[in-house]
Amino acid sequence: MIIVLKNNPEQRQLDNLRSWLLSMGLHIHESKGESTTIMGLIGDTSSVDMDLIRALDIVETVKRITEPYKKGNRKFHPADTIVDISGVKIGGGNFQIIAGPCSVESREQLCNIAEYVKMTGTKLLRGGAFKPRSSPYTFQGMREEGINLLLEAKAQTGLPIVTEVMDISHLPLFENVDLIQVGARNMQNFELLKELGRMKKPILLKRGLSSTLEELLMSAEYILAGGNPNVILCERGIRTFETATRNTLDLSAVPLLKAMTHLPVIVDPSHATGLYKLVAPMSLAAVAAGADGLLIEVHNDPEHALCDGPQSLKPEAFAELVKAIEAIRPFAYKMNL
Amino acid sequence: MIIVLKNNPEQRQLDNLRSWLLSMGLHIHESKGESTTIMGLIGDTSSVDMDLIRALDIVETVKRITEPYKKGNRKFHPADTIVDISGVKIGGGNFQIIAGPCSVESREQLCNIAEYVKMTGTKLLRGGAFKPRSSPYTFQGMREEGINLLLEAKAQTGLPIVTEVMDISHLPLFENVDLIQVGARNMQNFELLKELGRMKKPILLKRGLSSTLEELLMSAEYILAGGNPNVILCERGIRTFETATRNTLDLSAVPLLKAMTHLPVIVDPSHATGLYKLVAPMSLAAVAAGADGLLIEVHNDPEHALCDGPQSLKPEAFAELVKAIEAIRPFAYKMNL
Amino acid sequence: MIIVLKNNPEQRQLDNLRSWLLSMGLHIHESKGESTTIMGLIGDTSSVDMDLIRALDIVETVKRITEPYKKGNRKFHPADTIVDISGVKIGGGNFQIIAGPCSVESREQLCNIAEYVKMTGTKLLRGGAFKPRSSPYTFQGMREEGINLLLEAKAQTGLPIVTEVMDISHLPLFENVDLIQVGARNMQNFELLKELGRMKKPILLKRGLSSTLEELLMSAEYILAGGNPNVILCERGIRTFETATRNTLDLSAVPLLKAMTHLPVIVDPSHATGLYKLVAPMSLAAVAAGADGLLIEVHNDPEHALCDGPQSLKPEAFAELVKAIEAIRPFAYKMNL
Amino acid sequence: MIIVLKNNPEQRQLDNLRSWLLSMGLHIHESKGESTTIMGLIGDTSSVDMDLIRALDIVETVKRITEPYKKGNRKFHPADTIVDISGVKIGGGNFQIIAGPCSVESREQLCNIAEYVKMTGTKLLRGGAFKPRSSPYTFQGMREEGINLLLEAKAQTGLPIVTEVMDISHLPLFENVDLIQVGARNMQNFELLKELGRMKKPILLKRGLSSTLEELLMSAEYILAGGNPNVILCERGIRTFETATRNTLDLSAVPLLKAMTHLPVIVDPSHATGLYKLVAPMSLAAVAAGADGLLIEVHNDPEHALCDGPQSLKPEAFAELVKAIEAIRPFAYKMNL
Repeated sequence: MIIVLKNNPEQRQLDNLRSWLLSMGLHIHESKGESTTIMGLIGDTSSVDMDLIRALDIVETVKRITEPYKKGNRKFHPADTIVDISGVKIGGGNFQIIAGPCSVESREQLCNIAEYVKMTGTKLLRGGAFKPRSSPYTFQGMREEGINLLLEAKAQTGLPIVTEVMDISHLPLFENVDLIQVGARNMQNFELLKELGRMKKPILLKRGLSSTLEELLMSAEYILAGGNPNVILCERGIRTFETATRNTLDLSAVPLLKAMTHLPVIVDPSHATGLYKLVAPMSLAAVAAGADGLLIEVHNDPEHALCDGPQSLKPEAFAELVKAIEAIRPFAYKMNL
Repeated sequence: MIIVLKNNPEQRQLDNLRSWLLSMGLHIHESKGESTTIMGLIGDTSSVDMDLIRALDIVETVKRITEPYKKGNRKFHPADTIVDISGVKIGGGNFQIIAGPCSVESREQLCNIAEYVKMTGTKLLRGGAFKPRSSPYTFQGMREEGINLLLEAKAQTGLPIVTEVMDISHLPLFENVDLIQVGARNMQNFELLKELGRMKKPILLKRGLSSTLEELLMSAEYILAGGNPNVILCERGIRTFETATRNTLDLSAVPLLKAMTHLPVIVDPSHATGLYKLVAPMSLAAVAAGADGLLIEVHNDPEHALCDGPQSLKPEAFAELVKAIEAIRPFAYKMNL
Repeated sequence: MIIVLKNNPEQRQLDNLRSWLLSMGLHIHESKGESTTIMGLIGDTSSVDMDLIRALDIVETVKRITEPYKKGNRKFHPADTIVDISGVKIGGGNFQIIAGPCSVESREQLCNIAEYVKMTGTKLLRGGAFKPRSSPYTFQGMREEGINLLLEAKAQTGLPIVTEVMDISHLPLFENVDLIQVGARNMQNFELLKELGRMKKPILLKRGLSSTLEELLMSAEYILAGGNPNVILCERGIRTFETATRNTLDLSAVPLLKAMTHLPVIVDPSHATGLYKLVAPMSLAAVAAGADGLLIEVHNDPEHALCDGPQSLKPEAFAELVKAIEAIRPFAYKMNL
Repeated sequence: MIIVLKNNPEQRQLDNLRSWLLSMGLHIHESKGESTTIMGLIGDTSSVDMDLIRALDIVETVKRITEPYKKGNRKFHPADTIVDISGVKIGGGNFQIIAGPCSVESREQLCNIAEYVKMTGTKLLRGGAFKPRSSPYTFQGMREEGINLLLEAKAQTGLPIVTEVMDISHLPLFENVDLIQVGARNMQNFELLKELGRMKKPILLKRGLSSTLEELLMSAEYILAGGNPNVILCERGIRTFETATRNTLDLSAVPLLKAMTHLPVIVDPSHATGLYKLVAPMSLAAVAAGADGLLIEVHNDPEHALCDGPQSLKPEAFAELVKAIEAIRPFAYKMNL
């Protein structure tokens, strides 16, 4: 961390700053120019609050040189993390598709889709039981009953299941869920993250709508620092001015995150774009950019179900997409290209 | 709600759509043009999921005419809501400043600031006990101990207190807190909102970093629909590309929200801008735009405390600002100007 | 276009609105519900200013059903446009890479790169002569001399050349330029667009930093409406809150634009990300998403040139990327997948 | 400027960097820590291209300490600039309202509004002659004829006039225009800015839709560096995800710009919000925040003109607003509060 001081800093404040920094176990390397003094801080600066230093009257600017995330940082842990989801591996060259309906709606719906998904060779089943909805007046998910149906589908198909948690108090219901999803709106629900850090179960952490990549990694750090190394990151679109898509899928995040961290990185093209027509092209693009996996919504026969999300693929389109993904995978970007 | 159909919609799908809409208790008013058919839905459409309709093959576009928020909607409740915070009123012409330190750090710090704040005539004391921090390695607040210190300061000064809740499981600690704050990162923590809806205590709901005004009102609706009418909204900056300020304070939100809803609307210039130099001008601007109150960070003597937020005012500057606010208030915008 | 009227509109204003709409050659189809009246406008509404209608006291809301762009609209011109750049075709299944240095700096630099680019099989040479720079104090490009060097490189290699125009008054210098680029900052320089519409030369129109896809198509419409059908669109990143990349490359724009318009769509990963490490993965992703081409910066031996852009590839990395692009192309998304 | 080098930089590259920096007339102050070397550059770094340095293999990061704008920088020119518009002063305590119709439509319309505007004590008349429109099919302004009508209104009322230029080639028509406006879409039309720098006429420079404050000041620097000191800056809203307003008015820009630069800063609430209901509250808020002036759209009797912009005030509402502005001005923020 570098602190640039203002011209002619008041001596007492400077002494205060120096002794505070030393008290945190840091070494200070000072260099005086004609008009500016620069302090280089040597040591572990991850717990130093830049905002606090920047607020001091005598400070012109502060610049972090080392990243504030440690356990998730590829610099300190160069090898890819491989997360094992009840026997299904992701990361380190292992690519996985996670597929299923947006919401669990009935036993029949879920089982039909689960069987179909399995038939395509897909190894992980997703389905929403607790649904974060912006309106209190719309369907909030089947909740506990939805989780039970997912567990039935798991028993029937053998596919490990993925579903979203919305509150710490619901965690007991997730005992047999194989991969717990933290949704975009909860990416900075720090109490929930801490609780998940105390578990050993794999966590799928989605990027918040307005979160930077560094913030996503800091949220992962909450889980990692708690002792749970099984974190998968998911890019799912950020909020921008463009209204043609629901969100703007930030695919640059894939190679950037993979350079910044050793954790697996997957992409959710369904929620990112909100348009089923874009699921196939953006899935291929995500694979080409080097993603470790995809999260894809598949829905049942639309003749019998009005409530299909606008971003869901029908089963046949999904099966075709799985083939196209398999075909393009050998030509995807590899980090040392 | 208006549904515009595509040309030559398939008859069976059209019949499905019609019977589904009728089953929701809606009336349909159809009008056929040469190339498009328009369906106008009459009735309570607040629980109709637009995304689901938009996803249908036969639908070109859907447009909501009436707002999806009801209990918070000024159209249905024209009179200003006045929220009573343990005897201190806000809204309906009652203007309040809420002031105090960003974080509660010690009994001495908090009591000093509380006394100072009271001396300026300010009637509500804020202080952070649970602190949402992007890094797990930085200070997370004094938590339970912080709340106890706030309660001590309340006992000493008589000022009702305001502090942020981060998780449902902490709510028992908030029994004697007078106004519970929901932070920007929890604006869409729907399980928390539902729980707060079951209480009668006043809630201060901050706008999320990337939330639209409609989404803010929908989050308020969760609390209102639960039976708690005591909601205060707070504009605190949105995330944009501009890096000169921490966030971009959206002051247009003040008159717009006050036209959309009957709930009180306050502004937090400290967090929005992240720069203490902007607290005074943006406070005056917020008042001029018609805000019902302000949330302002005040910190102790910076000589004794390194950990002052970069957005906090010193006590003397705060006292001057309170005077300037009082002076400008009679000239502020009033809705029927 | 649909106009939703407010309840009980004033009769005289309603008559004014009706006669104004009729005077524009539109037919009106009115449908009265219990509380709202809806007017459907039939006819060519592309010249109707929605903002003006929305401003009327009696109007609740206005919604466009048909897109405001006509000549660029795939609905009316389903077949892909193929643009011929001095014999090199792009669009309609023809894929092209455009490569070269960010700035033309010297004859030697440009000719070396041009020869190298040609050796990889790349058929179009780019180079900046007029450089839009945010600071008046930094290098503004070699300008006229730069164009002359590009023409020399064209004579030597036979590669058609692409370079950016910044002002109408410079157009005479572009007589022998094969493809004229309009930069992101000039996407809404409407006088320039009109002038380019009077030419027959191919135009490469880059998306503005904060432009929606519809606005990009409306800018293309200025050129098309002027009589010049040879427009290529280029996605080059939009401005968002994320600072890890210079801009956020919006790859969803590729399949969306190709559905909206028949014009070729290419991608510039170099400028979008501002990081040379991302050029390869994002190039492959763009191809996978169905782009018709790429615009890639290549620079000379960095040992001899300090002034390499941070987003440029070295020649060897470029040659490897060209091979990877060729390998992935057969597996890219095709619209009727 | 500070350059942080990577660990163990290659010696030859380091020598190259050093000699290049020295060749630009800079002094280098190096400071070696255990793991990082920091170079402090002393001298005029305004022409140093940070991106180029950041691109070097041996560089970890680069940080600018001094602002890249010089002539507009308040640090070097502490006194407020006062711009004289044909006798009407703005800046340095002089507050002005600029009012008039969005578009000039006819002699009668313009003269009526001009007389009305003058009656309220407003001293500057605006009107659009050249109109930047996103669609080629909508009204493009009266152009030359519009300027002639503005000159007639000036002759009749004595009010200096303000209108927008869209292209260098139109500048001869602006000979008798008193204040030339550069629109948001042209803020980075650098060739136009250079040309305006060669004139002495006052320039009203609007912030671009996605421009940072630093970029706005760099665009002003183009004009100032050319020799024209008469620049007025205008905040008019930036593009964000919020759709309730056309743009998001960034009022924090007012006090921030006034701290960064000595140039006058005004606000355009009409275009920023796109809603006439917000013009009054946001005008008062802009004044409270310390703006040097306002740009307000006023339109004629709406019974006779359908084409009123949705953001325009009617004359009576404008007259009331002028009074409210006068009343609030004494209580506005002053920089040394």
